[in-house]
Amino acid sequence: MLMSKEAVWLWYPGDFEIHQGMLQNFKREERGMGWPAYWYIDDCNRNVNFKRHYDLKESTQFTVLAKGTGYVDVNGTKYRLNHAINCDAGATDIQVFVGNVQGLPTIYIVGEIIKSDSGWLASNFVTTLPAGHDILYTDRNQDPNGIEYRTEKVVAKAQQAVDGGVLYDFGRAVNGTVTVKTNGPVTLCYGESETEARDVEMCYYKQSDVTATTKVRKRAFRYVFVPHCQLGDIELTAMHEYIPKNNPSSFTSDNKLINQIWNVATETLNLCSDLFFIDGIKRDRWIWAGDAYQANFINQYSFFNEDIDKRTLLALRGQDDIKQHMNTIVDYSMLWVIGVLNHYQMTGDREFLKIIYPKLESMVQYFIQQTNEHGFIYGRKNDWIFVDWSEMDKQGTVAAEQILLLEDYKTIMTCGEVLGKDVAGYQAKYDQLFKNLMKYFWDDEQGAFIDSYESGKRHVTRHANIFAILFDVVDENKQQLILKNVLLNNAITQITTPYFKFFEQDALCKLGEQHRVYQVLLDYWGGMLDRGAVTFWEEFDPSQHGKDMYAMYGDPYGKSLCHAWGASPIYLLGRHFVGLRPTAPGYQTFEIKPELSEFHHLHTVLPIKGGTVTVVKDQHQLSVTASRAGGTLIVDGQRQSLEPNRTAVVPV
Amino acid sequence: MLMSKEAVWLWYPGDFEIHQGMLQNFKREERGMGWPAYWYIDDCNRNVNFKRHYDLKESTQFTVLAKGTGYVDVNGTKYRLNHAINCDAGATDIQVFVGNVQGLPTIYIVGEIIKSDSGWLASNFVTTLPAGHDILYTDRNQDPNGIEYRTEKVVAKAQQAVDGGVLYDFGRAVNGTVTVKTNGPVTLCYGESETEARDVEMCYYKQSDVTATTKVRKRAFRYVFVPHCQLGDIELTAMHEYIPKNNPSSFTSDNKLINQIWNVATETLNLCSDLFFIDGIKRDRWIWAGDAYQANFINQYSFFNEDIDKRTLLALRGQDDIKQHMNTIVDYSMLWVIGVLNHYQMTGDREFLKIIYPKLESMVQYFIQQTNEHGFIYGRKNDWIFVDWSEMDKQGTVAAEQILLLEDYKTIMTCGEVLGKDVAGYQAKYDQLFKNLMKYFWDDEQGAFIDSYESGKRHVTRHANIFAILFDVVDENKQQLILKNVLLNNAITQITTPYFKFFEQDALCKLGEQHRVYQVLLDYWGGMLDRGAVTFWEEFDPSQHGKDMYAMYGDPYGKSLCHAWGASPIYLLGRHFVGLRPTAPGYQTFEIKPELSEFHHLHTVLPIKGGTVTVVKDQHQLSVTASRAGGTLIVDGQRQSLEPNRTAVVPV
Repeated sequence: MLMSKEAVWLWYPGDFEIHQGMLQNFKREERGMGWPAYWYIDDCNRNVNFKRHYDLKESTQFTVLAKGTGYVDVNGTKYRLNHAINCDAGATDIQVFVGNVQGLPTIYIVGEIIKSDSGWLASNFVTTLPAGHDILYTDRNQDPNGIEYRTEKVVAKAQQAVDGGVLYDFGRAVNGTVTVKTNGPVTLCYGESETEARDVEMCYYKQSDVTATTKVRKRAFRYVFVPHCQLGDIELTAMHEYIPKNNPSSFTSDNKLINQIWNVATETLNLCSDLFFIDGIKRDRWIWAGDAYQANFINQYSFFNEDIDKRTLLALRGQDDIKQHMNTIVDYSMLWVIGVLNHYQMTGDREFLKIIYPKLESMVQYFIQQTNEHGFIYGRKNDWIFVDWSEMDKQGTVAAEQILLLEDYKTIMTCGEVLGKDVAGYQAKYDQLFKNLMKYFWDDEQGAFIDSYESGKRHVTRHANIFAILFDVVDENKQQLILKNVLLNNAITQITTPYFKFFEQDALCKLGEQHRVYQVLLDYWGGMLDRGAVTFWEEFDPSQHGKDMYAMYGDPYGKSLCHAWGASPIYLLGRHFVGLRPTAPGYQTFEIKPELSEFHHLHTVLPIKGGTVTVVKDQHQLSVTASRAGGTLIVDGQRQSLEPNRTAVVPV
Repeated sequence: MLMSKEAVWLWYPGDFEIHQGMLQNFKREERGMGWPAYWYIDDCNRNVNFKRHYDLKESTQFTVLAKGTGYVDVNGTKYRLNHAINCDAGATDIQVFVGNVQGLPTIYIVGEIIKSDSGWLASNFVTTLPAGHDILYTDRNQDPNGIEYRTEKVVAKAQQAVDGGVLYDFGRAVNGTVTVKTNGPVTLCYGESETEARDVEMCYYKQSDVTATTKVRKRAFRYVFVPHCQLGDIELTAMHEYIPKNNPSSFTSDNKLINQIWNVATETLNLCSDLFFIDGIKRDRWIWAGDAYQANFINQYSFFNEDIDKRTLLALRGQDDIKQHMNTIVDYSMLWVIGVLNHYQMTGDREFLKIIYPKLESMVQYFIQQTNEHGFIYGRKNDWIFVDWSEMDKQGTVAAEQILLLEDYKTIMTCGEVLGKDVAGYQAKYDQLFKNLMKYFWDDEQGAFIDSYESGKRHVTRHANIFAILFDVVDENKQQLILKNVLLNNAITQITTPYFKFFEQDALCKLGEQHRVYQVLLDYWGGMLDRGAVTFWEEFDPSQHGKDMYAMYGDPYGKSLCHAWGASPIYLLGRHFVGLRPTAPGYQTFEIKPELSEFHHLHTVLPIKGGTVTVVKDQHQLSVTASRAGGTLIVDGQRQSLEPNRTAVVPV
């Protein structure tokens, strides 16, 4: 939240996020080629008007700084930007007009009374709204058209003469630049893995003719291989770039592997989030709504960074007119809606809800325009009904999409009611869709949801059934049917993507299967650590070894080795083992329902809105401390209110 | 039209015009301040995909040049931009992906067989259309993000020591830069008039601290005054910038004043049109739909430049989603629609009609959304019902707007039928609107249209009545009533703006009042020449003298002295005195119906599509030659077909 008395850079709300999101989606690089995201990409408004009324008790002076061309209007008289303007006491209407033909139109007003704090409106000459701002841009000397990264020099942990060149191992994932002290030009071959860096032909990033003065593009890597070079010939330094963020969370237990998983997951999420949640730091570097949705859940249990969440939601949604589904994927648009609800439940941020609500509503209306007589959402030409990379019967309308739409209706009703909006119409939509979902997609014989009813194949996959658990679409009886007939039924095709594994593990935990999920943590994430991972991968198949481990999408190094959803153990541990969750928006009330039988000793701190919860398990004793009121500890069905900063101790 | 075998720069259709139009609307400057246009401004798409299929009979090579980041995809394999790509014979699908974060994404393909000629499609990932291009960008070394102006050095016609400084008179309107040879820094004070340049405090443009190396901003001026300087101290040279255009027209007669009016009008239109028709070169430099509409009509009788017309229509319309009316003015949007019809009638250009038609149709649909139960179009919040700067009863719906809407319905029906579109629904809209216009707005007692019927005032102004004449809404009987009761009735408030004078003179000529209009030419435009005008002004009031002549909109130098609509004598002379007009699209048929009794001797050449018409009057003999077939000469009601390049001679 903006401190109302501090000046900040202002813009048309959403424009900073949309403009920087556009830049982000153009940052992908592969083998000397730029690879723009393959969907419609919005940019910020070019022409913006800022205005505010003051009733001045005394005369005052102010100066408007701006990125762009324009002028200041005070009570109908024009003044220049960047020059001090004197105002007499009395009613004063100020307008600032700024156009920027290439970047973000933005202003900063320096003054005692008149300044760019909260209270300014911004207009794109169609819609007028409270001006937008960002916590990162509070100084008059800044320019919100650029990102100010903190830098950290990283020295190679090891240098090794191989293949007639030198391999540098920085021992960690670096997202930044490289400087070279060299006499002659050299070639830099990058790799997230050693194998990739040493593959001079096929490595993803390569830059030739690099001298000491060459501007080296920002890239993500752990290794750099310099061919045709000897140890000592050159000096290579990496400069990691990042936006600092606070991490209130920690996790240590008697299982060192789990501890390492927590820490590597934290590093992974940290790297995949600067301004926005991106999928991965090497490839794609794009903002995908599905990936961001999961990052949002993980973030809630680690950095609790509300700003990245908000920026990502605004960037994904783009300008008000909807041209196509997010990343072209219908289910991603629907997850975005649920992400708004989760952000509100996590933060209780009504101000942001006010900003996002019109965009939320038009998004839901966009869905409604593509529903049929049963209320089922269907894909139109150029819509991608994705759900997952999996064999699925997608003939006609698809069950998984309907369950997301149900949750979207719940979202708009919940958010709308918070803001006092008229959301009466959505309940009927929900009821119709729910009734028809159960009528057409629930199969009594199989005790599960089928993918499609129109095909007649009555094929069952896990996806819709998992969503039904997560979004409380079925009663306890049907939950148990789904657990038995689908989730624990090996005859049903396994989930093969880490993207959907997130949802599956979440559902399993929700049904009390923490023990199974704990084994998955040890095997799947532990398996990556066995292979020397310093960040978690996009995908891991224990049966693959050597070079094969790095291939994906038909590319020998197509797999991203630092991928946001790889950090999901944080969410699973925090949400389902420690058992922390908000029960009212912004953790006004929250509960801790630990399921820690896998641990003998454990010490964890997890964030809540405006505070932390500390949970300590020492053999058969559990100590829980919340720094804020509102908490309830639930152990063995016993509920106990938590006093702020008073440790509750219970036997377990 | 594109020569199908020449390579050109390609972009998403409309993007070049929208992007350059955006830049144009940010070029206004006043007293050290930028003055962005005060409406919503679109920019081009940021992310574009180009594609084409070839069936190659032999192997070939090509190279894709691009402004932006991206890659080339040939049958599913990625290749770099700017590098030669080899293709084997056979079926070949080529896609080029280009993102540009600041400017226009555009490509040029160099190759023997595969090249950027006609046949490429462009997509913004929502809509796929034939790629756009422009006759100005045909060379691989160009960049459509910039405008390549031709320059012309202009030496001051006179230097004069006044007011302790030196006044330079360049003797003509210059739109360009200034270079100064000077020992110390000087101040440049510009003026379209001597009075303005010498007003060091209040002149519109001023630049201080100018040395020999200062980059001086492009401005429009005739005079430059350098204060605190003596004759010989410095050397000042102007560099006029322009895009060359062909002028097939000429006009000489025994009336030297009329000849001079024609030539100064030509100069005025020439200056107010480089890429686009703008209102004026000093102020506003914006693309106004009303001004552009009139420039389009004048252009048809002088430069016949189809490209400026097309660029202006595309820039004004912007991206497909309509955010607001053009320049916020409802009647300007409606004039834009009629401008599309006029462009088609002038050029017969079906290719352009195909490009603009979807934008035309959505514009007309936008109007329909703001019609009431009578079919009358009304203004919504933030809509500007302008019509003219005049006392007018604008309560409720307004007659002038309804007449424009009638012509818009005619436009969509005519254009839609050319392209075989379904336009059946518009006739009913037209019929309802026509019926209600006559029922509610025609006043039988006054024999004229009233402004508003809802107010009960039954007030008559000229505007709706003029439009009714121009757009053939009334029969001959009512035309004569309007002529008598309105146009020639001094009790009806006079038209005071040159903008609407254009329409009034046009209507008077249409009703055979050429003799009156001839007097207006001599008095109004001749009056400006008497005051030393080298270009025609935004407005001229013969009663004003001295400094007062230059004031407008409350600004001492707010009047534009080189304003596009000032060139209207060209249209009036060509259309109504020489009497040339197309009677089928693209002058497939055309007529010449001279009304030249004001002239004893006259020699004029006027453009038609793909040719010219030469009309010579020598006392009582008229000689008419058309370079193309399709013409009909009409003299005293006698019709005579014109053979190409065969001079028809008739007594007059």
